[in-house]
Amino acid sequence: MAAATGDPGLSKLQFAPFSSALDVGFWHELTQKKLNEYRLDEAPKDIKGYYYNGDSAGLPTRLTLEFSAFDMSAPTPAHCCPAVGTLYNTNTLEAFKAADKKLLLEQAANEIWESIKSGAALENPVLLNKFLLLTFADLKKYHFYYWFCSPALCLPESIPLIQKPVGLDQRFSPKQIQALERAYDDLCQTEGVSALPYFLIKYDENMVLVSLLKHCSDFFKGQRTKITIGVYDPCNLAQYPGWPLRNFLVLAAHRWSSCFPSVEVLCFRDRTMQGVRDITHSIIFEVKLPEMAFSPDCPKAVGWEKNQKGGMGPRMVNLSECMDPKRLAESSVDLNLKLMCWRLVPTLDLDKVVSAKCLLLGAGTLGCNVARTLMGWGVRHITFVDNAKISYSNPVRQPLYEFEDCLAGGKAKALAAADRLQRIFPGVNARGFNMSIPMPGHPVNFSSVTLEQARRDVEQLEQLIDSHDVVFLLMDTRESRWLPAVIAASKRKLVINAALGFDTFVVMRHGLKKPKQQGAGDLCPSHPVVAADLLGSSLFANIPGYKLGCYFCNDVVAPGDSTRDRTLDQQCTVSRPGLAMIAGALAVELMVSVLQHPEGGYAIASSSDDRMNEPPTSLGLVPHQVRCMPVSL
Amino acid sequence: MAAATGDPGLSKLQFAPFSSALDVGFWHELTQKKLNEYRLDEAPKDIKGYYYNGDSAGLPTRLTLEFSAFDMSAPTPAHCCPAVGTLYNTNTLEAFKAADKKLLLEQAANEIWESIKSGAALENPVLLNKFLLLTFADLKKYHFYYWFCSPALCLPESIPLIQKPVGLDQRFSPKQIQALERAYDDLCQTEGVSALPYFLIKYDENMVLVSLLKHCSDFFKGQRTKITIGVYDPCNLAQYPGWPLRNFLVLAAHRWSSCFPSVEVLCFRDRTMQGVRDITHSIIFEVKLPEMAFSPDCPKAVGWEKNQKGGMGPRMVNLSECMDPKRLAESSVDLNLKLMCWRLVPTLDLDKVVSAKCLLLGAGTLGCNVARTLMGWGVRHITFVDNAKISYSNPVRQPLYEFEDCLAGGKAKALAAADRLQRIFPGVNARGFNMSIPMPGHPVNFSSVTLEQARRDVEQLEQLIDSHDVVFLLMDTRESRWLPAVIAASKRKLVINAALGFDTFVVMRHGLKKPKQQGAGDLCPSHPVVAADLLGSSLFANIPGYKLGCYFCNDVVAPGDSTRDRTLDQQCTVSRPGLAMIAGALAVELMVSVLQHPEGGYAIASSSDDRMNEPPTSLGLVPHQVRCMPVSL
Repeated sequence: MAAATGDPGLSKLQFAPFSSALDVGFWHELTQKKLNEYRLDEAPKDIKGYYYNGDSAGLPTRLTLEFSAFDMSAPTPAHCCPAVGTLYNTNTLEAFKAADKKLLLEQAANEIWESIKSGAALENPVLLNKFLLLTFADLKKYHFYYWFCSPALCLPESIPLIQKPVGLDQRFSPKQIQALERAYDDLCQTEGVSALPYFLIKYDENMVLVSLLKHCSDFFKGQRTKITIGVYDPCNLAQYPGWPLRNFLVLAAHRWSSCFPSVEVLCFRDRTMQGVRDITHSIIFEVKLPEMAFSPDCPKAVGWEKNQKGGMGPRMVNLSECMDPKRLAESSVDLNLKLMCWRLVPTLDLDKVVSAKCLLLGAGTLGCNVARTLMGWGVRHITFVDNAKISYSNPVRQPLYEFEDCLAGGKAKALAAADRLQRIFPGVNARGFNMSIPMPGHPVNFSSVTLEQARRDVEQLEQLIDSHDVVFLLMDTRESRWLPAVIAASKRKLVINAALGFDTFVVMRHGLKKPKQQGAGDLCPSHPVVAADLLGSSLFANIPGYKLGCYFCNDVVAPGDSTRDRTLDQQCTVSRPGLAMIAGALAVELMVSVLQHPEGGYAIASSSDDRMNEPPTSLGLVPHQVRCMPVSL
Repeated sequence: MAAATGDPGLSKLQFAPFSSALDVGFWHELTQKKLNEYRLDEAPKDIKGYYYNGDSAGLPTRLTLEFSAFDMSAPTPAHCCPAVGTLYNTNTLEAFKAADKKLLLEQAANEIWESIKSGAALENPVLLNKFLLLTFADLKKYHFYYWFCSPALCLPESIPLIQKPVGLDQRFSPKQIQALERAYDDLCQTEGVSALPYFLIKYDENMVLVSLLKHCSDFFKGQRTKITIGVYDPCNLAQYPGWPLRNFLVLAAHRWSSCFPSVEVLCFRDRTMQGVRDITHSIIFEVKLPEMAFSPDCPKAVGWEKNQKGGMGPRMVNLSECMDPKRLAESSVDLNLKLMCWRLVPTLDLDKVVSAKCLLLGAGTLGCNVARTLMGWGVRHITFVDNAKISYSNPVRQPLYEFEDCLAGGKAKALAAADRLQRIFPGVNARGFNMSIPMPGHPVNFSSVTLEQARRDVEQLEQLIDSHDVVFLLMDTRESRWLPAVIAASKRKLVINAALGFDTFVVMRHGLKKPKQQGAGDLCPSHPVVAADLLGSSLFANIPGYKLGCYFCNDVVAPGDSTRDRTLDQQCTVSRPGLAMIAGALAVELMVSVLQHPEGGYAIASSSDDRMNEPPTSLGLVPHQVRCMPVSL
């Protein structure tokens, strides 16, 4: 109860303030706006709320903000009046605390006062229902700090009640009540709204007339001692009007106190009980209008909401507790990514990355690290292919496996890797295929069983490459990269290839064949280099994506069986343990940069000379290959 | 039963062959030898086995190899005779299969034959008990392939039995038996061995004499028609002698067949039954000696062991099934590391790395990646310090956490990280400390509680730094690195520092103060740069470790509170997801390289000019800082 200045039964009018009702949808939408649109912008934003008329007794008077609050053209729900607000969303908790709430309130009050003085509020009474919302969204924790204000101008003195509030049915006959209903509904219909916040009333025993505020001069012509005004009242209390009346009374005092010493107020309350419309709980009373006609200064204002403890202070809502943890994880992962767009790379097209469907051929040291980096980039669709089982030496170097996965002969890597991704982030769509990739130099036994199996493997592989956007070659032999390279080339899929030495590595993107319509006579099915074209270009000229080679382009010998006759150190990838992480990370970063290029895989290969120039993508260069070990450690 | 040529009851002598008994300890030791010593060396190796005399009836005749097999000077167990062998351990399964077993056998047979002809075998009868072992150790799977051979020269014709084998007690009186025991024991004692494989015997009703082979001329002087020889017989069968007799009979035929047409053989069997020594199950028989005195050519030989299926083929033992999985994991992790030393970096001192106790200050994106790389390098002692809880956005970028860890407010990072390391590799000694690091610019509230806590934190931090060898600074603020940098400098601990930007990073080692006795006037407690020294050195001169700066050396402003007033994107480390993996991996690689340097943290900082020179460590350069992003992606 605001402005309580004594016993509620006494003769001063008091108002039931709004309780802010900020819906989860509102916070969700604020989060989205902050992440994607406002970012670091702290400028005030227009938002919109509404209040409902028709609650059962006992509910507080609420000003509701929901997901639609940010859409100023969103329709107002039935039986509701809109309220227009200003959102001050700060970047830091410190700025939130330091905000000058007195000033903000004064500014809003001034605007209301100006709209009263200028008559704008008569034309558009919604201007009287302003609100302010000061917020800080801690999107790391899903804690939302806020402080709500519905500014109310204060009359210079308290308002004496000439007639105490009574139920409408104690003043109006059933016939008058019916006539009021009809007159109000008709006016709404004429205006094309479902509710009017403020209106004017004239009535006698036989009829009830209502009118828009802007027609007051005509409407009140001939009235003598008092006028009647109507307010669409969200309050339920029998003795008190709700908050929307306050600024209206100031308007009334300013406009009409010189002609009319008092005003009769009808708090229009409109509910449906057991299927029957009922406005009899509306209240009606009469107050003395203070003289305000000639005061030029904005009256002082009140309106900052008290917090849950009843003190003056902000509120906090912790949405992490009520959010579905999986949704929360998704939003949090998005958050980190979107923050990149705020300041550092505003032109980053995250969607191109997040929506890329990635096929990882190999779920070993490189495969695990590539998958981890893809997860970091928010990639949602990751598929593994591998035919190995997890062995005891794997978990310390292959960061998707643990000791438990090695027991009882070891789980299949592809399946375990997919399973682990789900455990890291349930929002990912990860799958694993425990299968072999047919390889040159590894002849297929011509028994019908193994032949059929090889045929199925090729088919499966082709299907997988077809249904993904990017193919990563992360196997431990040269020859296993051959068939996928050929298939991916024929389907014009971006291929990212990574391979490790002991303290060297190569990360490369394969050239992408020209699109079919352009028709280029390719020399080899697995790469698009056209010898004649290359002859004409200087060694250091930047080569377009469709002329870049693949992993096999410099081969003099055909890929063969490299696994035969290998000693132990040749069987294991013996490399500095940090190398796979570096190469895996670079492979993904290369993919991301290429995807950011408007021409994607057809992008001209950057050379190191390009470091001095404007980079071709928001993330930098798009080289053909990366081969260094950065420290030459 | 080898060389079975008819009914066992008939008149041809047959021998019970050895069963190879290769103990788990043998394979374990072979693994160690292979990893640390032989590596890629396939040259034949001398090994040693033994056979036991004293089994209960029913056990097969075994030639046992255990962990001691590689130590040629290891003592032979009591009641055992040694056998000398040659190990052919191949690098690949292909080489194992392709080994020329016929040739190996012929070579061994020739050596035996030569020792017989030259008389060396008389001097040292162990030369008659040769064996061969062909192996391939698949240390990735702990599968050991082997083929055992105990070469036996064949007499040109089968050996007719003149007297069938009978128990010793059927031929010797109890008195003779007792005399034999005593004579044998005395000879052993004289020779200082616990068993003699071969010996000579003379006996009559009243006495038993035994002698070494080398005294045969004197010993047999005056013998007429037959001589008696003794063999320490591991066989239990009543009708057959064991394998050791075979080559001895060839020796006997070669040496004595010209003088003696037949030989009496006493298979000396010596066991303890219910606490009482018993040699009565020894057998004695007489055979005709074939004429071999003048044949110069080595007789053909047999001896490759049959496999479990009874065919000629190798055996395989899968130790992964019977090993403790945790031990298996440890060995497997070691394997990958040791393979580096085989070919690529033979001078790598792995122990310096594996034994380094690493303190990770910060268990976030960098901390997790550093820990993963340390695990890859086999580091066994890793301690985390962090005071944060795991939030939903962490798992996709912090590779030690999963979605589950975020629930219910999130686990403490330091504890969860340590826990995860144990799950990845149970052999690691990982601990976590959920504590804050006191920071300049973050004043401690002077209530006694928080002050006391800060005091405890400083103490704890100091103690942790003291008990570790390397301190990694991996926090997300500048100022939190200050106190640990100062403490670590004062304790002369190697500090590795990593920090991320959006697409840049720095990885550096802090300078290490001169050891106290050298006494240098340091300018600042946290670094050892001496201004006067630097003035004299050119910009590109290589700076020794004790003159290198620390993270704060170029600071113009003191570290302060950088967390206040940070917007969301400043609170989170907004960086390309691949960057932390790269920086984390490089931080560890830098540590490893520095540890390999003979001067450790005092090593002269490599500059990029040094790339053309001989690197200062087996792993390359030891720069002061690494700051690039290798693709300039």
